[in-house]
Amino acid sequence: MGKVTVVGIGPGNDDEMTPKATAAIRGAEVVVGYHTYLKLAESLLKRGEQEIIGTGMKQEIERAQAAVEAAAAGKSVAVVSGGDAGVYGMAGLILEQILKLTEDRRPLFETVAGISAVNAAAAALGAPLMHDYATISLSDLLTPWETIERRLRAAGLGDFVIALYNPQSHSRRENIKKAQYILQQYKSQYTPVGIVTDAGRPNEKKVIASLQDFTQEEITMSSLVIVGNSQTYVREGYMITPRGYENKEAAS
Amino acid sequence: MGKVTVVGIGPGNDDEMTPKATAAIRGAEVVVGYHTYLKLAESLLKRGEQEIIGTGMKQEIERAQAAVEAAAAGKSVAVVSGGDAGVYGMAGLILEQILKLTEDRRPLFETVAGISAVNAAAAALGAPLMHDYATISLSDLLTPWETIERRLRAAGLGDFVIALYNPQSHSRRENIKKAQYILQQYKSQYTPVGIVTDAGRPNEKKVIASLQDFTQEEITMSSLVIVGNSQTYVREGYMITPRGYENKEAAS
Repeated sequence: MGKVTVVGIGPGNDDEMTPKATAAIRGAEVVVGYHTYLKLAESLLKRGEQEIIGTGMKQEIERAQAAVEAAAAGKSVAVVSGGDAGVYGMAGLILEQILKLTEDRRPLFETVAGISAVNAAAAALGAPLMHDYATISLSDLLTPWETIERRLRAAGLGDFVIALYNPQSHSRRENIKKAQYILQQYKSQYTPVGIVTDAGRPNEKKVIASLQDFTQEEITMSSLVIVGNSQTYVREGYMITPRGYENKEAAS
Repeated sequence: MGKVTVVGIGPGNDDEMTPKATAAIRGAEVVVGYHTYLKLAESLLKRGEQEIIGTGMKQEIERAQAAVEAAAAGKSVAVVSGGDAGVYGMAGLILEQILKLTEDRRPLFETVAGISAVNAAAAALGAPLMHDYATISLSDLLTPWETIERRLRAAGLGDFVIALYNPQSHSRRENIKKAQYILQQYKSQYTPVGIVTDAGRPNEKKVIASLQDFTQEEITMSSLVIVGNSQTYVREGYMITPRGYENKEAAS
């Protein structure tokens, strides 16, 4: 029986890919992925032995269909996803495609978790998460802006640490500015903001600024932006959110 | 110069620990951790060669001090943390202890990211995250209940998928019931709820129920509870949150 394994490869270096992910990619007959992620997993691929199906950006549905069709035909298929496949990744799309098939054609399904971008970025900044946090994608390709704005306001109200995924793309440069403006209605303008680009890769770059003065020049398609909560502070280049509230509140 | 590396070991099986985490533990002169996590990393420890400092529950500060003191004395120290060390883990406490030292005594610091509980639990359930999510710890040991309740309400308002960490302990059995009651004021009573206990371990157990009818009997100290958003559905035993909103809304 065929099987699709959706594999989170983490930030994109072999050193932060789990042995389970490595084995799933090496053991597959077919490997499917976005070109960029296939390149990051290149050292694991056995070109010649394995069938490799690479697709371009925004072709998620084609990718999912190709993977599920191959598995329905009896193949073992690994779908390579950046970070964790379950966070803005391929796991959901693959499951939806599998469930569209009649029961007799449905392949097995498994997800292999990976280090998500928020965890890799946090590790680079010090300890900015540590307490309750919310992730919000600023991409309005599949989500109306109204929904994104509602989430930003709710996360602001709740004093969450906020991780902004997909903060900017070539064609979408306004959303991060809008988010910055909205969050200033709920958080102090001095709230620390950490921007990590290519987290966990050799060219990793980080900037720590404040909610008021961070600029989109620091942000690319490969950035993750972490906005602190009311307790977050910066010291010696580290962005730190204390785990407890009692001490801070007792001290203030 | 001494160094503290805070290492996220993931869910607790060697197969989901990154090579970077494995190397950091093996290469340390001193390994510090909560007994339970040391047990999970036992196969990596070189007892006899390495100094192993195990401490009990709720002794986070003692643990952090022991680690930082050893590193200030010139040792390389690995602090073992469950899941990701940056999510309700040891990274922040260690940094705070390091910054208390005078500059000449401060050891180097690094965090090695790990698979967080929310990612391991999501992989077990199918694809329940996929879109914007919030993590909230129900432990009121270090956080006043008012703050936790404020976060629950905000996350409900924002229609986030919600991951509840520390849903229950022996001495704290009411918070999960209170959370269930609060979230029903914002979410449909039929919202899918996934409960994963010991995610990613051999004894992993999962239950999918609804916001209205899930019971705390299924929940232990090692459980993570994931509450869906308004688009989350259950099919064939999988909990799925679609990534996009447009299709669903156009179809309804």
